Amino acid sequence: MSYNTFGQMFRVTTFGESHGPAIGCVVDGCPPNIPLTDADIQRELDRRRPGQSRFTTQRREPDMVRILSGVFTHPASGEQVTSGTPIGLMIENVDQRSKDYSDIKDVYRPGHAGYTYDAKYGFHDYRGGGRASARETATRVAAGAIARRIVPGLVVRGALVQMGPHKIERASWSWDEVNSNPFFCPDAKQAAYYADYLDEVRKRGSSVGAVIEIVADGVPPGLGAPIYGKLDGDLAAAVMGINAVKGVEIGAGFAAAELSGEENADEMRVGNDGKPRFLSNNAGGILGGISTGQPVIVRFAVKPTSSILTPRRTVDRYGREAEVSTKGRHDPCVGIRAVPVGEAMVACVIADHYLRQRGQVGASPTWPFDPPKT
Amino acid sequence: MSYNTFGQMFRVTTFGESHGPAIGCVVDGCPPNIPLTDADIQRELDRRRPGQSRFTTQRREPDMVRILSGVFTHPASGEQVTSGTPIGLMIENVDQRSKDYSDIKDVYRPGHAGYTYDAKYGFHDYRGGGRASARETATRVAAGAIARRIVPGLVVRGALVQMGPHKIERASWSWDEVNSNPFFCPDAKQAAYYADYLDEVRKRGSSVGAVIEIVADGVPPGLGAPIYGKLDGDLAAAVMGINAVKGVEIGAGFAAAELSGEENADEMRVGNDGKPRFLSNNAGGILGGISTGQPVIVRFAVKPTSSILTPRRTVDRYGREAEVSTKGRHDPCVGIRAVPVGEAMVACVIADHYLRQRGQVGASPTWPFDPPKT
Amino acid sequence: MSYNTFGQMFRVTTFGESHGPAIGCVVDGCPPNIPLTDADIQRELDRRRPGQSRFTTQRREPDMVRILSGVFTHPASGEQVTSGTPIGLMIENVDQRSKDYSDIKDVYRPGHAGYTYDAKYGFHDYRGGGRASARETATRVAAGAIARRIVPGLVVRGALVQMGPHKIERASWSWDEVNSNPFFCPDAKQAAYYADYLDEVRKRGSSVGAVIEIVADGVPPGLGAPIYGKLDGDLAAAVMGINAVKGVEIGAGFAAAELSGEENADEMRVGNDGKPRFLSNNAGGILGGISTGQPVIVRFAVKPTSSILTPRRTVDRYGREAEVSTKGRHDPCVGIRAVPVGEAMVACVIADHYLRQRGQVGASPTWPFDPPKT
Amino acid sequence: MSYNTFGQMFRVTTFGESHGPAIGCVVDGCPPNIPLTDADIQRELDRRRPGQSRFTTQRREPDMVRILSGVFTHPASGEQVTSGTPIGLMIENVDQRSKDYSDIKDVYRPGHAGYTYDAKYGFHDYRGGGRASARETATRVAAGAIARRIVPGLVVRGALVQMGPHKIERASWSWDEVNSNPFFCPDAKQAAYYADYLDEVRKRGSSVGAVIEIVADGVPPGLGAPIYGKLDGDLAAAVMGINAVKGVEIGAGFAAAELSGEENADEMRVGNDGKPRFLSNNAGGILGGISTGQPVIVRFAVKPTSSILTPRRTVDRYGREAEVSTKGRHDPCVGIRAVPVGEAMVACVIADHYLRQRGQVGASPTWPFDPPKT
Repeated sequence: MSYNTFGQMFRVTTFGESHGPAIGCVVDGCPPNIPLTDADIQRELDRRRPGQSRFTTQRREPDMVRILSGVFTHPASGEQVTSGTPIGLMIENVDQRSKDYSDIKDVYRPGHAGYTYDAKYGFHDYRGGGRASARETATRVAAGAIARRIVPGLVVRGALVQMGPHKIERASWSWDEVNSNPFFCPDAKQAAYYADYLDEVRKRGSSVGAVIEIVADGVPPGLGAPIYGKLDGDLAAAVMGINAVKGVEIGAGFAAAELSGEENADEMRVGNDGKPRFLSNNAGGILGGISTGQPVIVRFAVKPTSSILTPRRTVDRYGREAEVSTKGRHDPCVGIRAVPVGEAMVACVIADHYLRQRGQVGASPTWPFDPPKT
Repeated sequence: MSYNTFGQMFRVTTFGESHGPAIGCVVDGCPPNIPLTDADIQRELDRRRPGQSRFTTQRREPDMVRILSGVFTHPASGEQVTSGTPIGLMIENVDQRSKDYSDIKDVYRPGHAGYTYDAKYGFHDYRGGGRASARETATRVAAGAIARRIVPGLVVRGALVQMGPHKIERASWSWDEVNSNPFFCPDAKQAAYYADYLDEVRKRGSSVGAVIEIVADGVPPGLGAPIYGKLDGDLAAAVMGINAVKGVEIGAGFAAAELSGEENADEMRVGNDGKPRFLSNNAGGILGGISTGQPVIVRFAVKPTSSILTPRRTVDRYGREAEVSTKGRHDPCVGIRAVPVGEAMVACVIADHYLRQRGQVGASPTWPFDPPKT
Repeated sequence: MSYNTFGQMFRVTTFGESHGPAIGCVVDGCPPNIPLTDADIQRELDRRRPGQSRFTTQRREPDMVRILSGVFTHPASGEQVTSGTPIGLMIENVDQRSKDYSDIKDVYRPGHAGYTYDAKYGFHDYRGGGRASARETATRVAAGAIARRIVPGLVVRGALVQMGPHKIERASWSWDEVNSNPFFCPDAKQAAYYADYLDEVRKRGSSVGAVIEIVADGVPPGLGAPIYGKLDGDLAAAVMGINAVKGVEIGAGFAAAELSGEENADEMRVGNDGKPRFLSNNAGGILGGISTGQPVIVRFAVKPTSSILTPRRTVDRYGREAEVSTKGRHDPCVGIRAVPVGEAMVACVIADHYLRQRGQVGASPTWPFDPPKT
Repeated sequence: MSYNTFGQMFRVTTFGESHGPAIGCVVDGCPPNIPLTDADIQRELDRRRPGQSRFTTQRREPDMVRILSGVFTHPASGEQVTSGTPIGLMIENVDQRSKDYSDIKDVYRPGHAGYTYDAKYGFHDYRGGGRASARETATRVAAGAIARRIVPGLVVRGALVQMGPHKIERASWSWDEVNSNPFFCPDAKQAAYYADYLDEVRKRGSSVGAVIEIVADGVPPGLGAPIYGKLDGDLAAAVMGINAVKGVEIGAGFAAAELSGEENADEMRVGNDGKPRFLSNNAGGILGGISTGQPVIVRFAVKPTSSILTPRRTVDRYGREAEVSTKGRHDPCVGIRAVPVGEAMVACVIADHYLRQRGQVGASPTWPFDPPKT
C-alpha cells in the first residue's frame, strides 16, 4: 500500500511540493546494466519544461535533474549503467517566487484540491497547489525516461488530438509535426488554429481542456494479466493519476459501445512475416488485459485549468462565502504539457509489465505453436 | 505485486475459471464486528446471476455462495459478525455443460483473449474463456456485498445509460425503474425500446456495447490521496479491470475537455446545513484525487460481446488462417450484467480508501476550521 | 499491505479457522506449465498431518486437498500443468468435534493469543485457537508443495535438532533417519531418547519446545537483494510467522557474535568444477542478503505448547482472576510438526526470489567474468 | 513488491551508496499534523554517526539531514508539522575520500557481498560496499526519528548486551549508563572491560560480533495480526535486514525451546490499575503475533566485521585464487552502531502496525469486556 508509489516491479516513488527545496523520485527495480546518464533523463524533462512558449506558464524552472544513486561505471565497458539498486533523482526548485498568496490563502479555488486537502489533512498548501502541483509531474517524466530504455524496441509517443471542442483531422496525422508546434499537435493546420484560439482564451481570462493520445509501438505480445493486473487497468490508473485527467480510453474506447460485435472484432490473418496480423485495432493493442503486439493506444481527457482570472463563487476555510479569481502564471491549457507526462506514465506501466512477465513466465511463448503429437 | 488481488487495506483475491470445480475469493482486511450472513452476500449475487431474462446467457448457475471462514458469533450480541480475519468465499460451478468445444479449441475468436493468453502462457483455456470468463465477476459482486457494509451511510447504485448508440433521457432518470426492467435502465421508455432492439440484435447473430454509470452517495469527504493513491485513479483501474471495458470517466469525463474553465469549476456556497454546498458536480465528487462529499460518479464503456454467430476471419494456434463463429449461450449485451459488477468494484474501492484514511489520518478534520489565534 | 498474504511474485493468501467449514489458500503468480496434480500436494500434506504417532495431537483430520482452479491439461503434452492463473486450494475441516468449550470460553490461557485477539478485535475464537490454530499451517505446506516445483534443482529438507534442552549430535546427522522416526530427527540415538522423554513430559501434563533446522540445497547464487528485499530478511519473516516461533538464525546465527572476523569469514577457492568453492558456511548461504550458491541454512526455536494440563493463573474477559488448565488433544511438542511447515515456508521464499530475480535481471550473470579489454 | 521499501502504511524507501553524491529516503504514509523539524531527525542521526570514539570507523561524515518535502507550517499553530504527503530526506556524502581501491577492486573479501553482487548484477561496487554500505543505515535512523513521534507514549531504546563472547550482567542494567559509554552498554563494569577488549581486537587486526537488545515500552495492546502480518514476523524481517545480522529473537527467544510449558507461560493477574498484569514476559510482549501491552523485546546477533587486516584466502572476479586483507577505516565491532539502527527499525515497525490497526479496527477495544446479557 502506498500513496506515492506506482508500479510493481519497476516502482517509482515521488516526493516534493512546488514550494519546497526540491522534488524528486526513487526508481526501484530497474534492471542492472542499462546505459543511463543525466543527459538521457534531461532530454525528456526539457520537453515538459514550462516557459518554452507563450502557451504555457511563464514560471521559469530549469528543471535540472541530478542522479543521486543507482548508477555505476561498468568494469568491462567503462560506460555508466544502472546498477540494479535504487536510482535517486532530484530536481531543485529554483523559482519559488516569494509571491504574496495572502489573498487566496484561506479561500478555496473551485476545481482545485484546496477543499479536499483540508477535508483530508486539516490544512492545504495554498502555495502553488502543494503536492497537487503540476510540478510533481516532472518526476514522472524523469522516471519515464528510464522506463523507455528497459523494453527493447519500445517507442512511446504522444499527441494532443483535441483542444476544447476542436479535434484534429485524423487523416492529417504526422508524428514529425508533433515536435514542430508548441501543442504537440500532429495536425499542422489545426495547430495553427490552436495558436489563435488559445490566445483568445487567455485574453478573456478563461481556460480550456484537451484530449491526449499516447501510442506505444513495439510492445511485445503477452504483457499484462487476465484480471486485476490487466495492462489496460494499470494504464487507466496511471493516466487517471495525472493531474486534471477525467477520462481514459483504450483503443476504440467509448466509441466501442456504439459498434456491433462484427465491427468491433479485430479480425486476424497471417502476415507476410509469418506473424499474426490484425486487420484493425479497436482493442488498442490489448485483449483480455494482455498485449496483442499491436500498438497500445491510450487516450485521456484533461479538464480546463482551474486557475482562471474570471471570478467564481466559493467559500473559505472558516465558513464564509467569498469570490475568488486567480492571478499569476498559469497554463491556459494544462493538457499541452500533459503529453510528455502521459508518455512517461505509459512507458512506466509497460516497463513494469515487461519485467513482471519475465519474472512469472520467463521467455514468452511464440506463435505459431507446435500441434499436439497424435 | 499481484495479478489477482485488488485493494490495499480491503483486499480481494479471486480465483477460479468457469470450467473448474469452483470460483471464489478471499477478502482480507475487513474490520471486525460487521454483521454478515450468507444471505447478505447472496442477495447481491442474485442480481448478477445469468438466466434471469431472455437478454442474458441461458447458462444456469445458481451461484450459491458459501462463507468458509472469517465470521464468528459475537459473544455479546449473539449475532454473526466478521471476525477481522480473512473471509473465504466459494461458489461451486454446477453447470459445466459437457459441451463440445472441439471446433473452436484451436481457433482464436476475434475480440477474445485466446491469442493473448497463448502469447503469454503458451496455451489458453478455450472452455468458456477460462480466467477471463464473465463468471469470475461473481466473486467481485460477493466481495462488494461486504464492502458496502463497511462505510456508514454509503449507498452505491448503478444503471445502464446507453445501449449501442441509444442513450437514455437523463430527465427521465428513476432509480426505482432500474430494478423494474431487465436492463438496469433508469429510463422506463428507453428500457422498453431496448427490449425490442436487443431481440433484433440477437436474431441477426450480432451483439452490442453499452455504457454504465455508477453513483456512490454518502462518500465522506477526504478519501483518496493527491498523487498515485488517487480515488479516481483506483476507481479507473477497478472499473477498467472488468471484462470488456474500454473506457472510464469520472464526473463530466471526456466532456470536460470541451468546457471552459468557468463552466467546469464547481462553485461553492454555504449550505443550509452549514456544510459546503457545490453548485454543480462536474468533478464527479473527486478533486485532486480526494473525495469532496458529493456523489462519486463513474461511467464506463463496455464493448459488444465478442462471441457472435456472424463468422469472422481469424487464425488458429498452429499458423493457419480460418473462419470462426460462436454458437452457444452468450449475452448479446454483456454490459447489462456489468451493472452490479461495476457497483461492487466501486464499493470495494471506496471501502478500501475509507480504511486507508482512518489508518493514516484517524478521524477526518471537519470544515469549517478554527481561524488562527492572533 | 496484507494480513494474510506472503510473498511478492509467488504469493500465498490463506484463509480459514480450525472450526469453520474449511481452510484453504490461493497461490498467485505461479509460472505456467509446471506439472501439478492433487497427489503432488497431498504427499507433502501427509507429512504434516496430525495423529500419525502418539507424539502429536490425536485430532483426526484427513487433510484432503482439492485443487479448485489454476490447472489445465496442456494441449501438447496432455499432462495437467499450472495455467499461470491463481491456484485455489481447499481442505475441508471434518473433525470439528462438538467439544464443550464452555469452561475456557471466557478465560485466557497463558501463552495463547486469546487476550491479544480480544485486545485487537474485541473477541477471540476460543474454539481451537481460531485463526491462530496450527491447522492453518496445512495451507502453507500445500503452497510449499507448489513452490518446490518452481526452482529447478531445489531440494528443501528440515530436521528437529533440539527438543527441550536436548540437542542432537551433529556428527550423527543422517537425512535418511529423518523420515524413520516420528520426530523428524536426523540422529537415530537421540530420536530414541526423545520418545521416552516426550512420554514423560506428556504424563506430567507439561510440554516442551524445540529447535528446527531447514537446509535448502540447489539455491542458485544471486537470489535476494541488498537491503529490504534480503533473502535472509524474508526468510526470517516467513519462519517467525509460524505459530510459536520465538527465534530465527541464518547460518552460524547467534554463535557468529562470538566468532572473530577471521573465524567467521567463509574463505573461497576455485573448485574442481571451476566454480567458486567456500571453505565453510557460517553465512548460511547468504551474504549481503543475496544467496551464494551454498546451502541456505535456517534455524528456528519453537516455544513449548501453551495448552497444558498443569493449572496456571490467569484472568478472564470480564476482569476476574482465574485458574486455567487445558484438557484435550494437544501436541506435547508442537515443534515436531513445525518441520514440514518450516520447509514449506523456506521453499516459498526461495521460489519467490527466484521469480523476482528472473524479472529484474533476466538470466543471472555467471562467474568468472571477462576481464576488461585494455 | 519492492527491494528498497519497508513498511505497509508507514513506508520507507531508501536510496544511495556510500560513494555517490548523497543517500536519502522517502517516508510515505506519515500522518499529518505531527510536529517535525530537521533538528528532531538530526538528534537521532548524531547518535549513529561514526567517528565519535576510537571504537568506530574514523570516516568523517557530518551526516547533516535535509527535509526536502512533506512538512508545512500549520495555519493555526504556526508550528512546522508533517503534511501527510511524502517526506523526502537527503544526506549528502561529503567524505568520499579519493582512496585507491585498485588492490581490492577485483577480489572478493570473504564475508562481504562482493561475490553475491557479482552473481546477481554482473558487477559489484567495490568502493565502500556500495548499497550494502553501513552508511545506508543512516537513512533508517532518520526514518525512525519520524516513526517515534507517531505512537503516543512509545519509547524505544536499545543496548549492546554482548560483545564477542562477553555478556553483560543483567542485574547491572542501567538505561542511564547506555548513553555514558561508547558501546551503548547498560552495564558500566562490562563497558569498561569492552574498551580494553576492543583495543586488543583492533590491534591484532581482527574484529568481533555483538548482540543487541531493543526494548519498546508503551506499545499499545492489539498491534499486529494473527498470521503473516505478525508483529514479530515484521520485526524479524526489519532487524534481519540490518547489515551483518545473523539471528533474531523475541522475548525468551531460543531459550524458550528449553523451557517447559509451565515455565514459559506468562501468567496473568489483575493489576492495581485494573489492567491485566503479566507475571513474566517470556513472550517479549507479543502473543500470536499481536502485542500484549508488555514491553516488546527484540534481540539480534551481529557478526564480526568482515573487513579485517588479517589476510584471508579468496578468489577474484576473473577466476583466479588470491589473498586479501582490508586496510582502511573500519569498525572493529559493527554491532555498536547497530544499536540506534535497531531502535529505528523497531520504531518503524511499531508505527506501521499502529496505523494499520487504526485503519482496520479503528479504536481498539479495551479489557475488561461487558459480559453478555442473559
